[in-house]
Amino acid sequence: MKNTFGNSLTVTLFGESHGPAVGAVLDGLAPGLPVDEEFIAAQLRLRRPSGGTGTARREADRFAILSGVFEGRTTGTPLAITIPNEDVRSGDYRRGLARPGHADCAAMAKYHGFADYRGGGHFSGRLTAALVAAGAIVLQALRERGILIGTHVLRCAGVADRPLSQGGDALREELGRLNGAPYAVLDEAAGERMRRAIEQAAAEGDSVGGILESAVAGLPAGLGEPWFDTVEGVLSHALFSIPAVKGVEFGAGFAMADRRGSECNDPMRVEEGRVVTLTNHNGGVNGGVTNGMPVVFRCVVKPTPSIFKPQETVDLARMENASLSLEGRHDPAILHRARVVVDSVAALALADLLALRYGTDWLREGGKA
Amino acid sequence: MKNTFGNSLTVTLFGESHGPAVGAVLDGLAPGLPVDEEFIAAQLRLRRPSGGTGTARREADRFAILSGVFEGRTTGTPLAITIPNEDVRSGDYRRGLARPGHADCAAMAKYHGFADYRGGGHFSGRLTAALVAAGAIVLQALRERGILIGTHVLRCAGVADRPLSQGGDALREELGRLNGAPYAVLDEAAGERMRRAIEQAAAEGDSVGGILESAVAGLPAGLGEPWFDTVEGVLSHALFSIPAVKGVEFGAGFAMADRRGSECNDPMRVEEGRVVTLTNHNGGVNGGVTNGMPVVFRCVVKPTPSIFKPQETVDLARMENASLSLEGRHDPAILHRARVVVDSVAALALADLLALRYGTDWLREGGKA
Amino acid sequence: MKNTFGNSLTVTLFGESHGPAVGAVLDGLAPGLPVDEEFIAAQLRLRRPSGGTGTARREADRFAILSGVFEGRTTGTPLAITIPNEDVRSGDYRRGLARPGHADCAAMAKYHGFADYRGGGHFSGRLTAALVAAGAIVLQALRERGILIGTHVLRCAGVADRPLSQGGDALREELGRLNGAPYAVLDEAAGERMRRAIEQAAAEGDSVGGILESAVAGLPAGLGEPWFDTVEGVLSHALFSIPAVKGVEFGAGFAMADRRGSECNDPMRVEEGRVVTLTNHNGGVNGGVTNGMPVVFRCVVKPTPSIFKPQETVDLARMENASLSLEGRHDPAILHRARVVVDSVAALALADLLALRYGTDWLREGGKA
Amino acid sequence: MKNTFGNSLTVTLFGESHGPAVGAVLDGLAPGLPVDEEFIAAQLRLRRPSGGTGTARREADRFAILSGVFEGRTTGTPLAITIPNEDVRSGDYRRGLARPGHADCAAMAKYHGFADYRGGGHFSGRLTAALVAAGAIVLQALRERGILIGTHVLRCAGVADRPLSQGGDALREELGRLNGAPYAVLDEAAGERMRRAIEQAAAEGDSVGGILESAVAGLPAGLGEPWFDTVEGVLSHALFSIPAVKGVEFGAGFAMADRRGSECNDPMRVEEGRVVTLTNHNGGVNGGVTNGMPVVFRCVVKPTPSIFKPQETVDLARMENASLSLEGRHDPAILHRARVVVDSVAALALADLLALRYGTDWLREGGKA
Repeated sequence: MKNTFGNSLTVTLFGESHGPAVGAVLDGLAPGLPVDEEFIAAQLRLRRPSGGTGTARREADRFAILSGVFEGRTTGTPLAITIPNEDVRSGDYRRGLARPGHADCAAMAKYHGFADYRGGGHFSGRLTAALVAAGAIVLQALRERGILIGTHVLRCAGVADRPLSQGGDALREELGRLNGAPYAVLDEAAGERMRRAIEQAAAEGDSVGGILESAVAGLPAGLGEPWFDTVEGVLSHALFSIPAVKGVEFGAGFAMADRRGSECNDPMRVEEGRVVTLTNHNGGVNGGVTNGMPVVFRCVVKPTPSIFKPQETVDLARMENASLSLEGRHDPAILHRARVVVDSVAALALADLLALRYGTDWLREGGKA
Repeated sequence: MKNTFGNSLTVTLFGESHGPAVGAVLDGLAPGLPVDEEFIAAQLRLRRPSGGTGTARREADRFAILSGVFEGRTTGTPLAITIPNEDVRSGDYRRGLARPGHADCAAMAKYHGFADYRGGGHFSGRLTAALVAAGAIVLQALRERGILIGTHVLRCAGVADRPLSQGGDALREELGRLNGAPYAVLDEAAGERMRRAIEQAAAEGDSVGGILESAVAGLPAGLGEPWFDTVEGVLSHALFSIPAVKGVEFGAGFAMADRRGSECNDPMRVEEGRVVTLTNHNGGVNGGVTNGMPVVFRCVVKPTPSIFKPQETVDLARMENASLSLEGRHDPAILHRARVVVDSVAALALADLLALRYGTDWLREGGKA
Repeated sequence: MKNTFGNSLTVTLFGESHGPAVGAVLDGLAPGLPVDEEFIAAQLRLRRPSGGTGTARREADRFAILSGVFEGRTTGTPLAITIPNEDVRSGDYRRGLARPGHADCAAMAKYHGFADYRGGGHFSGRLTAALVAAGAIVLQALRERGILIGTHVLRCAGVADRPLSQGGDALREELGRLNGAPYAVLDEAAGERMRRAIEQAAAEGDSVGGILESAVAGLPAGLGEPWFDTVEGVLSHALFSIPAVKGVEFGAGFAMADRRGSECNDPMRVEEGRVVTLTNHNGGVNGGVTNGMPVVFRCVVKPTPSIFKPQETVDLARMENASLSLEGRHDPAILHRARVVVDSVAALALADLLALRYGTDWLREGGKA
Repeated sequence: MKNTFGNSLTVTLFGESHGPAVGAVLDGLAPGLPVDEEFIAAQLRLRRPSGGTGTARREADRFAILSGVFEGRTTGTPLAITIPNEDVRSGDYRRGLARPGHADCAAMAKYHGFADYRGGGHFSGRLTAALVAAGAIVLQALRERGILIGTHVLRCAGVADRPLSQGGDALREELGRLNGAPYAVLDEAAGERMRRAIEQAAAEGDSVGGILESAVAGLPAGLGEPWFDTVEGVLSHALFSIPAVKGVEFGAGFAMADRRGSECNDPMRVEEGRVVTLTNHNGGVNGGVTNGMPVVFRCVVKPTPSIFKPQETVDLARMENASLSLEGRHDPAILHRARVVVDSVAALALADLLALRYGTDWLREGGKA
C-alpha cells in the first residue's frame, strides 16, 4: 500500500519538496461533513516555522481543494487537496552529497538516483503540510462527535513540560487549550526555557530533539483488533511516518520496564454505569482494543539532522568520502511544528478505525438540514 | 485488514486459548523453500514456559501443516498451520470478572459478550505459538539469504544485559548465539540475576516487565517507503500485536530526546565500495527506508497482568465493583518467551517488504535441483 | 492480497486437492451470529457430486470449526473452518503431463514445479468446499436481514431454463425455492432435459458448459463505489475465482450490445415512498452502486476440461509433445454444483460491502437475549 | 479500498465532472521510467469526442504532473496528475431530477444528497481522462518490455468488425495499428457503417451500445493467483469501473455455454522450447493464471444513458414522479472513446500483477544512462 494509509478511510500522500505541489487524497469520508477552510489554514499556520527558531523558508500554504467538497461540505467522494510549493531555492542543494541523518543514501538505494534530490524530495517534511490539511478536516469532524486530540511538547532540549492530566474535564480543557496554541506546552515557563535552549543550540550550529505527548479523549471502547490492527499498531504505523519520529510508546510505556505488575495494572470500577480505571498506565488500550479511557501516547522526535557543524559524509555520485558543511534554511527544532502533524496523523488513523467499526457514514451529522 | 498482516506476504492468525486450535495462514511465500519441521518445533520450544519461572500450562505444541507444503518444500500456495490446544483447564476462568491489565473489558465492548472468555480467548498469548510456527519458516528462508534476526532480554526486573554489538561479525555471532539460547542474554551472569529477580517477584505474587532488544543484519538498503509504510511503521505495527508490548523504538530511540543533532547523525564513509555509517543512532533506517546498516529496535514488555495480589475490578455481567484474587497458572515474566515471538513477527514484516520490492519469488533458492 | 478477499470482511482460502485438508478463515464477522452446522452441512451436500452425472470422488465433507465460534454463535474473531480430504486416490495423477484446459502449464510457470500436482493441487475445485462452508455462515446471516441470494442453471448443454422473475414476491419465492433444491432450475422439465444432455456428453467422453443466473433481493441502495470497488467489479472479482467461470454480466449484459439507450434505461417511479424502476436492464446497479432493485448477474461456466477423449498436450517435465487419455473421476458438468459456490461467493463479497458501509456489527442480531 | 485500485502498483482517482479538476495518483511505479508528455496528450486526444458523433463538450485536457517525475523520468514516488475542467456549463443540470440509466438515484442513497450532482459529479465519464493519463505512463513502460495492449470496437449498433487475430506477429501488428487509430476497427468499412448507424440513432434522439475486444500480447506466464486475485478477477474488477461496462468475458467467454469440453480445451505443443496452445479458447488464462498466450477479453458497453427521448423518472428532491427531456451535450455512442480507457485500465491492472510478482523495479530500464 506504500504511500496510502487506511482501510475504510484512506489517505494518499504525494509531492516533492521542490516540485510543483504537495498534496493528499482522502477517501472514505462521510458525506455532509462541514469543511472549514479557515480551520485548515489555521492548522497549516501552526505547522509553519515562525520567529527566530524556524527555517527561513516561508510558504504561504495556499491550499486548493480539487474534489470531494461541494457547497462547503464533503460529498463522500475522494477529497484531493494540493498545496503549491512557492518559496523554493533549489540552488541550495547539491546532487550526490549525502546529508548524515537524512534519507539521501537510503533514497539512492531505493530510487537508483532518479529521485528528486532537492530539499529531500519526497522525504521532505514539507509533505506534512498536506497531512495537516487532510487531518484538519477529520480533526474537525471528530471534535463534532466529542473526540478531542491534542499534543504538547513534553520535553525538548532537556527541558520538561508537566504531563497531561489523566482524564476528565481537566484533560479536555488542556487538549482544547493546546489545539490553538502557537507553542504547545502546558507550563508556559517551561516553554520559554525550551525556546532559549533551542536558540542556544542553533547558535552553536546544532539542533535538539524531544518528546511529544498526546492524548485522545472521547473515543468509544471497542476500537482496534487483538492482532495486527491493534490501536497501538495502527497508530504507531502512522506516527512513524512523521520524519524524525524514532520511538512511540503508549500509557506508561518504557517506564514499565522497571515496574511490577501490581504497579501497571489499572484498577477498575463502575462509575455512572460505565467501567472506568483509576489509573491509566495502559494508555486507554488493552489487548490492542480501546477500553474507553483516554488513549495516551508519546513520540520521541530526534534532533533535526540538518546542522551547520561540519560532518563526515559520502559523495554518492562519485562514491568517495567527503565533508559536508550545510548551508540553506533549516530548523534547529521541529517539535513545536510536528505536534500538529501528530494530531493530524492520529486523527486519520483513528477515524479509519471508527469507520471500519461503525461504517463510512459514522462521522456524518444527523442529516442535511 | 484486521487479523491479517502484510501485502505481498500475508499472515492471518486465528484461534482462541481454550478453543480446538490456534493457527496461521501464510500466503505469498515463494515456492521451493525448504520447510524444516525440526526447526519449527525448536522455535516453539523456545516460546514454551519452562522451569520454575513459567506458567504451569504445558502444551506439546504438536503442529500440523494443512497446506502449502509438498515433499518438504513450500509450494507457493497458502500455507496453513494449526496447533491444537491440549492442556486446557477452563474451570480456572470465570465469566464476567474483568482482570485488570487484561483485555476483558475492551473485549466486552468490542464483542458484546459473545467472545470466548476462557483464558483470554482470542487475545491470549497462546496465539503467539502460531506466529512462531509461521515465523520459523520465514526466519529460515531469510537466514538462507544472509539475513539474521535476533533478540535478547536487554533489561528485566531492573537487571540489565549488555547491549548488542553495533554490527559486523560481532553482531552476527551474537545473533547466531542468541537464536538457539533457552534464555536469551549476552551476559549469562545478568541472566542469572534476572531469573532470581523474577522468582522474587513471583514469590510476592507479583510480576515483572522489561525491554527486548533486537537487531537484523544483512538487509539490503532501499526497503520501506518514505510515508506510511516506513520500515519503522511496518515493524512497529506488527510488534505491537505481541501482547504486553507497549512501546517500540529504533536506533537510539527515546534517548535522542536529550541529545543534539551532532550526537544523533551517523557519519558516513565508503568502505569496500559500499556506504557505511560509523555509528548507528538511526538504527539502520533513514526516512523510513533501510540504509544497509543493521536494523536495531527495542520493545518494552509490560509486566504480566496476571498477578496473585488481590485487585479491585468489575464484574462485567452484573456491572458492579468486585475484587479479584487470581488462581490458575500464570507467568511472572514473559520476556524470555516473547523474544522468539519478536523474531518471528519481525521476520514476517520484513519478508513482506522484501517481497514487495523484489517480487514473490525472491526468497526462493536458485531452483529445484 | 492473493488468496484473501475483502476489506472489512475477509476470507482467506487454503488447501490442496490431495493435501490433508482444505479450509477458509473468515475475519470481520459480527459477533453473535448463530452458526447452524446443519445448514453448513446441507450447503456442502448441494456442492457434492451426486447420482450418475458426477465425479466418483465421494467426500464426506466433515468440517471442523477451529475458532471464532463459542456456544453456537460467532465471537467476532477469525473463524477458521477446515474440511479434511478423505477420499483421495493420488495414483490417478501423473506428474508433468499437462491437462489441456487446466492450469497445469500456468502452474508450472508460477510455482516452478514445486506445486502439489495431484488433482490440480491448490487449483482444484475441491477448495470450493471451503468457500461453501464459509459462505453458508454469511448466507444465513444475510437471510436474517432480509437479503436473499439464489442461483439457477439458466442454460446447460444447449437447454434453457426460464429466467428469474424481475423482482417482488415472485423473485423471493423463486430464490427461496432454489436455495435448497438439489438441481437448481425453475422449470423441472428443462432440468430433466439438461441431465439427459449431460449424460449424452458423458457417454461420448465429453463435457458440457452453461450459464448460471443469480439474483440478490433485499440489498439496500447505496452499496459500492463509483470507481474500482463498484458492485460489479467486486462481485466479478470474486466470481472469477470459481473455476471454469469465464464471463460475468450484469442486468441485460451482453444483450445490450445490440440495443438502443431507450431500450436499456430503466424508467423510474415512486412507489410507497421508495424509488423503483419498471424494468431492471441495469441489474440493480447504476454507476457501480446498488439502486435498491435486485442485483442480477450471470456467469458462463465453461465445459469441464477433464474429458476422456484423447488430447494433444505436452509433458512439462521433459518439454516434449505428448498425448493424454484421462482416467480417474471427473464431472461431465459442474453447473448444478457450482451454483451453491456462486451463492457463497456472492454472499461473501456483498457482506464485505455491507460491512464497509454499515460497520462490522451490521450483520449482528439486536443483542444477546 | 474504494477509489484506489491495486496492491503493489496503485492508482487513486478523484474529481467531479464540474469541479476544479479530475486527477489520479499512481504509486509504486519503478523509478527511471521515461514520461512522454506527448504520448499522454495523444492518448487523451483519443478519448476526446470528435466530429459529428460526440458530445459538444470540448476539453483541452491540459494535464499537469504535480509529483513523481523529475528530469523527464519517474522518480519512484507517487505520481499525481491533474486535469482541470475548463469547458463546463453547469446550468444544464437540474438538482434532483434522476436520469434513467444514470447513477443519480444510487448516488442519493449513497451520499444523502451531498454529492455534486452537476454532470454526474464523481460518477462522470470525465474521470476517465485521469485514468487515461495515468494509464499512458504504464502503457508506454509495458511496451518497452514487449507487452502490447490494444482494443477495437468489435460490435457497435449491430455492425460487426472482424475479430482480432489469435496471436503471433499478426496480432502484434493489429495491436500496434489500433493503438494510434482515431476510430479503432480492423475493417475500416465496418467502422464507416458503425458511424452511420450511430448518426442514425443520434438523429432519432437515441444512443447505441456495443462490444470492445481487447488483447494483451507478450505477458509472461505465471501471473495471477488461483483464488480471488485471478487474472480474470483483477482485470474485470478494474474494467467494471469504466462507466457503461456491464459484462466482461475472457477467451471464448459466453460462447462456451453451448460448447463441449473438446471444443474449449486448447491443445498444447512445444514450440522453440516453449509451451504454446494451438487455439486460445481460454483467452490466455488457466486457473486464474496466465499461460503465456495472449490474454483476450471483451467488454459489453451499454448504450449511453443520456438520450433525448422523453423518459419517465423521479424528482428525488420532492420524491414524486416526473418526466425528463434531456438537453445539454451528450454522446450517442462512447465505444470508440472508451477503448483507450480499456487499454489504460488493463495496463494498470496488469502492471500491478507484474509488480507483485517481479518486484516494484521490474518496469524499469536497465539503469540510468
